[in-house]
Amino acid sequence: MTLLENARQRTVTREMTCVAQNEKVDVDYLLKKIAAGEVVIPANPRHKNLHPMGIGRCLKIKINANIGTSQVDCALERELQKLELCIKHKADAVMDLSTGGKLDDIRTSIIHHSPLPVGTVPIYHVMVENKKIKDVTAAQIFATIEKHGRQGVDFITVHCGVTKRIVPLIEKRVAGVVSRGGSFLAKWIMVNNQENPLFEHFDELLDIAHEYDMTLSLGDGLRPGAIADASDQAQITELQVLGELTERAWARGVQVMIEGPGHVPLNLIQENMELQQKYCHNAPFYVLGPLVTDVAPGYDHITSAIGGALAAFYGAAFLCYVTPAEHLRLPTLEDVKDGIIASRIAAHAADIAKGNQEALSWDLQMSQKRKALDWDGMIGLAMDPEKAKRYRQESGLPESQDACTMCGDLCAMKMIEETL
Amino acid sequence: MTLLENARQRTVTREMTCVAQNEKVDVDYLLKKIAAGEVVIPANPRHKNLHPMGIGRCLKIKINANIGTSQVDCALERELQKLELCIKHKADAVMDLSTGGKLDDIRTSIIHHSPLPVGTVPIYHVMVENKKIKDVTAAQIFATIEKHGRQGVDFITVHCGVTKRIVPLIEKRVAGVVSRGGSFLAKWIMVNNQENPLFEHFDELLDIAHEYDMTLSLGDGLRPGAIADASDQAQITELQVLGELTERAWARGVQVMIEGPGHVPLNLIQENMELQQKYCHNAPFYVLGPLVTDVAPGYDHITSAIGGALAAFYGAAFLCYVTPAEHLRLPTLEDVKDGIIASRIAAHAADIAKGNQEALSWDLQMSQKRKALDWDGMIGLAMDPEKAKRYRQESGLPESQDACTMCGDLCAMKMIEETL
Repeated sequence: MTLLENARQRTVTREMTCVAQNEKVDVDYLLKKIAAGEVVIPANPRHKNLHPMGIGRCLKIKINANIGTSQVDCALERELQKLELCIKHKADAVMDLSTGGKLDDIRTSIIHHSPLPVGTVPIYHVMVENKKIKDVTAAQIFATIEKHGRQGVDFITVHCGVTKRIVPLIEKRVAGVVSRGGSFLAKWIMVNNQENPLFEHFDELLDIAHEYDMTLSLGDGLRPGAIADASDQAQITELQVLGELTERAWARGVQVMIEGPGHVPLNLIQENMELQQKYCHNAPFYVLGPLVTDVAPGYDHITSAIGGALAAFYGAAFLCYVTPAEHLRLPTLEDVKDGIIASRIAAHAADIAKGNQEALSWDLQMSQKRKALDWDGMIGLAMDPEKAKRYRQESGLPESQDACTMCGDLCAMKMIEETL
Repeated sequence: MTLLENARQRTVTREMTCVAQNEKVDVDYLLKKIAAGEVVIPANPRHKNLHPMGIGRCLKIKINANIGTSQVDCALERELQKLELCIKHKADAVMDLSTGGKLDDIRTSIIHHSPLPVGTVPIYHVMVENKKIKDVTAAQIFATIEKHGRQGVDFITVHCGVTKRIVPLIEKRVAGVVSRGGSFLAKWIMVNNQENPLFEHFDELLDIAHEYDMTLSLGDGLRPGAIADASDQAQITELQVLGELTERAWARGVQVMIEGPGHVPLNLIQENMELQQKYCHNAPFYVLGPLVTDVAPGYDHITSAIGGALAAFYGAAFLCYVTPAEHLRLPTLEDVKDGIIASRIAAHAADIAKGNQEALSWDLQMSQKRKALDWDGMIGLAMDPEKAKRYRQESGLPESQDACTMCGDLCAMKMIEETL
């Protein structure tokens, strides 16, 4: 039985107990949310060392970090270092998007070393193995997905909503298709003049997902890649298709998340979140960004933190990090860290705004330490204690217990303290 | 006559023509907005090389960068380097918050070298000159303000709303007072058991502001410095006082902005902007942040970009940058740059969301260059072309005209392009 089927039968599994404890919610409440499809726990039973994590808008907002090799840089060691950074800086999940080197070895090694749920995009593996798109068969795609399940992948991105009917809509766009999996499938449809196998044979996909209890992350192959394309017909039509597929997955006992945009201006974020909830029956929304402007390459961790915070406040449950390297190159270790922190800030800002008690308590403690000029306390509570400590040390002021290294003698808090 | 008086008499000044051209708005429209107090152009006639700039929510969102020495680090040269960075990276205004070295020399030198409007907090000068708060007199405060006017300062922060009646409200707070000027005045009130001279003798302040045509930036001396203190009684009561003073300044022909928070959770930002518009009669709102969480020292350029984007979307007109050094130490040159870019991203995201045509056109052009894989074009349009270029060069991929240094061979745009 899958985790979803267990929840429906009111059987509490180890994963549910663990998530309920972490989130400080009642296990019965969690069970109902899972049964309703509003929370997913991506947990492939073959991923042995997994520490289970729940995703849903009624829980704390989660973040995902993408790692993985490229054809230029395919060292497994570096990817394991990135995984270490993800664990250290508290990403909630990782996706292995490797496209270079021995893909099976890299994937199984990441799963083996990761207590975080691991996601993949199986179509990347298919793309790398086949230089000629015409030669790719549906059987090959499903065999690859099945292999990922066997290897212990917890959730997979599958671009099932890129259908023959929708593909022509991309011609109106400024930036066309920016999802690699989405463009591969759109091209496959055009070259072969056939329907997307992930859509046409969706039941076969569900059989595999059911067998390995993999959570489906229904990909937004046609997510907008430009502010000018946000909320266009291609995007919204695909979202509606994903909503239909969500119900079919639920009927088969398979957990589902929906992937979302992309590049979206600030004024359209709330509407985007509400449309997803409506069309996709409150399945958890997993957003990439959204980036609130196109013009800041080198700083897209910031453009996406703005969009992500707002998206999570209005209903997204899971934020995919964006690093400063987005649009320019693959992320370095430093980029991975910067991406994680920016994304955690966005998630935490939304948790605060949604009234999460743990989140509010963290901020309250920090402010109490500030008032007390307790610098060790402040550094210990900082989201990135190492950077906070380094900045304080660089101040040039003596590090006595209460010297304010920002304002020096002219400390607002000290002035008042001396008077009261 | 002041700029505001000219606008009321429908006299178009050089400053107004210049701002109307920059903003691509009709000069009559601008004139009306200035006369109504909804737009300010901080422009002291003694600031000879000023390139005038307008602030108001009907114009593009503007950003300010704080520079200035401390008692530890008081080299004028470094402050002029910071000013150069502000000009290069397109801050719209600078504030000289110096508290170390020869303050008059530093200030006049910054004004001399700055085409951007220059703001100051005159009370800092008073604080540095007087170790004993009991000795500070109202006459001294006004003499300092007058000197700033004579030196050509375009706008001054004056904490007129920290009144005797409001000060007791700070005792309820988690983080007390975090504005240095605000805490100085609160302490002055308590030590001397007298009313804040900037409030009690507000007409005298208006006379000086009128004489030098300095724009008043009515300071939020009691802005919340913790999420837990956001929108509290001290903050809102001070805001109401500032609204009353706004009308008195307008009656005297003096331009006014209102300063705002601070630390504010995402869910209270819209409300904060609406309260300011209501209490302060649509005077431009100048916000510091707002920071949407307390727990990310080292990354407060990001926490404030999230809050600033949303604040500007809901009505703030002017964003004060926050650098990664906030809460930890004074900013380095690199911090200044990072603060400016983060703040510009927030401002630009709001411009897009508000439908500003120039902002939308910039994003559209960038996306067209992306679709065309025109890398030189993308780098040229980037908010920070140097960083974008460096990241691309670091990719390890050959820099041929169209090689995608993010995705390499697996480029979504190329795949579709080859098919269509």
